Amino acid sequence: MTPKMTALRVGVIMAGGSGERFWPLSRQHLPKQLLALTHPDKSMLSLAIEPIAELVGLNNVYIITGKHLAAPIHEAEPYFPYENILTEPCKRNTAGALAYTAAWLMARYPDRNPDAITLAVTTADHRIGDAEGFKLMLETAMNMAEQRNALVTCGIPPTRPETGFGYVEAIMDEPVAFESGKTSPVYQVRAFHEKPDAEQADRFVASGRHYWNSGMFFWKLSVFLGELRRARPALAEAVVTMAEALKRDDTAIVERIFEAIEGISIDYALMEKSNNVLMVRGEFPWADVGAWNAVDSSGTSDSSGNRTIGDPVVVDCANCIVYNAAGANKMAVGVVGMEDAIVVVTDDAVLVMPQSRAQDVRAVVEELKHRNAKQI
Amino acid sequence: MTPKMTALRVGVIMAGGSGERFWPLSRQHLPKQLLALTHPDKSMLSLAIEPIAELVGLNNVYIITGKHLAAPIHEAEPYFPYENILTEPCKRNTAGALAYTAAWLMARYPDRNPDAITLAVTTADHRIGDAEGFKLMLETAMNMAEQRNALVTCGIPPTRPETGFGYVEAIMDEPVAFESGKTSPVYQVRAFHEKPDAEQADRFVASGRHYWNSGMFFWKLSVFLGELRRARPALAEAVVTMAEALKRDDTAIVERIFEAIEGISIDYALMEKSNNVLMVRGEFPWADVGAWNAVDSSGTSDSSGNRTIGDPVVVDCANCIVYNAAGANKMAVGVVGMEDAIVVVTDDAVLVMPQSRAQDVRAVVEELKHRNAKQI
Repeated sequence: MTPKMTALRVGVIMAGGSGERFWPLSRQHLPKQLLALTHPDKSMLSLAIEPIAELVGLNNVYIITGKHLAAPIHEAEPYFPYENILTEPCKRNTAGALAYTAAWLMARYPDRNPDAITLAVTTADHRIGDAEGFKLMLETAMNMAEQRNALVTCGIPPTRPETGFGYVEAIMDEPVAFESGKTSPVYQVRAFHEKPDAEQADRFVASGRHYWNSGMFFWKLSVFLGELRRARPALAEAVVTMAEALKRDDTAIVERIFEAIEGISIDYALMEKSNNVLMVRGEFPWADVGAWNAVDSSGTSDSSGNRTIGDPVVVDCANCIVYNAAGANKMAVGVVGMEDAIVVVTDDAVLVMPQSRAQDVRAVVEELKHRNAKQI
Repeated sequence: MTPKMTALRVGVIMAGGSGERFWPLSRQHLPKQLLALTHPDKSMLSLAIEPIAELVGLNNVYIITGKHLAAPIHEAEPYFPYENILTEPCKRNTAGALAYTAAWLMARYPDRNPDAITLAVTTADHRIGDAEGFKLMLETAMNMAEQRNALVTCGIPPTRPETGFGYVEAIMDEPVAFESGKTSPVYQVRAFHEKPDAEQADRFVASGRHYWNSGMFFWKLSVFLGELRRARPALAEAVVTMAEALKRDDTAIVERIFEAIEGISIDYALMEKSNNVLMVRGEFPWADVGAWNAVDSSGTSDSSGNRTIGDPVVVDCANCIVYNAAGANKMAVGVVGMEDAIVVVTDDAVLVMPQSRAQDVRAVVEELKHRNAKQI
């Protein structure tokens, strides 16, 4: 039987994060992806699905997530094809998630040449400021993945020496492809760099050739498998074996193989090791929505830099985020004389911390787990 | 008919405060007096009733409060004789409350000579650190009021240059009465001073003869009326007229007269103007429980100076008060990395402020009133 060569584009949204950093709004069964953190009423996941669905068609969009999140995602996004929600047997970081997705697609399309399946991998973790610019990047990146047989990523021009992101170093001599006004410029990638220290971050920003690693990837299934075979032969082998087992519906084998996979990031497992990586420059405002201090809320702003949602009473405060998710009728929230504070209120929980400690919500969640509290 | 001369002692607890500074725990129908702010399960009012009831008998204790608080007080303190809850027609400060109380007692005991009725007037606003020392003061003050025909007050030796209290200046040359170990020393009062500025407060504390005005008063009804006649003849006249109207149950007249009374403090109306005032020195730990930062909670303390109630999760905090009145099961409260903050949570409201702004809760309550919120 001759494998079908019709080009198929699929979108993959990685949505496995536990989102503890958005407690008390996020919970074990309500991760941050399902919260409307960047839009008045659309969840992060919903906003991630839209542009990808426009590019490849909704039926070709897949969500890869944890088992316990399939039902909540289905409930939150009922229009989304339930059978396209892929669930990992356990958590094995992004390398695991993308290996599983590759295996699943090989099983789903047994007759199709892996050279005729191109993936756009994104996440539901970011705020995109310009939908059109983002779609232009997606289109460019998919074209590059198909035409150049490369692993493609999207790099964001850094606007500050951020130490919380990885960086992609591009070879800037001349763009691989660039059609002004129609595509974003594309460069060869020299190296991936993990999260830098402050001094390194300063140098990166000054260099003009280092970009924030956006965590978006584009590749043909065949290219992914080929590069993975060179970089991580065991992982490539696992993909093939899982694909065979998935074709047979042999869940036990899939689980056993998947559990044995090393839980590492795809950047570390594959991207860093490959010499065949292109970077499309992101020409749109982009922000990582990683913790409460990064929520550029859809709420109200005042002249003192306070951002509020849910009508809290904020008196003499500056640079505070006050998020009353329960609404003023259920919970009256009053904040007086605070600076740089984050106050989050739901109908069964309250969080208070300085902006600088936004990453440390996890300490609260850990303690609540330890106490077996119901609010996790 | 000859007036009865048997000595009668009555206790009067002024409990008319609105307690907005303890929002969100206090509400319009649940003032601070009904909250357990200084004891695990006894309200401020309950703690105020106990020693006075021991001195004069429960049936001779009266609570003077606002109309809307009679039912809540009855519900909170069911053992307390309901008919002893006196309700003012409207708010007219402490001078109004004590004028009304005097009139009410005259009407209640029409056959009794006002020289044979002695009042101990206290509030439910304070934390008393030594019940026995407090009772000794009460006994001494009542004796002085009866034996010396004076207005008697209780002065607290200042432990800091507090600008939030009034001061009583004593003539220290020699005590009017003092029986070591049995009574507290008693002095003639030279003057009452309103809340001082910082410099004045420093001088007051250094002088050794200035005491905090505790807001407690002791007097025979006859002495009160006589001194009031000299200081505020119109107010004394109002007391007599109200007493006559109360005897006839003529509520309309009582209300009309009461509404016309000037809303001023008894300190300003009477004590400052009188030359016949004695002060018993308070020999017990005393604290004004005026706002959240003054709550020496009945909860848990840790080595970083945090005081907690209701099992909040407190991580890397110092000198914070975290009061989860709803309990951890209803509301999970997490506070991370805060210093000097006050966080109060009920099942329908949240308050966050620095300790230094504890007085400013009212701004929140005002705004909530303006919004017609249900949580006031």
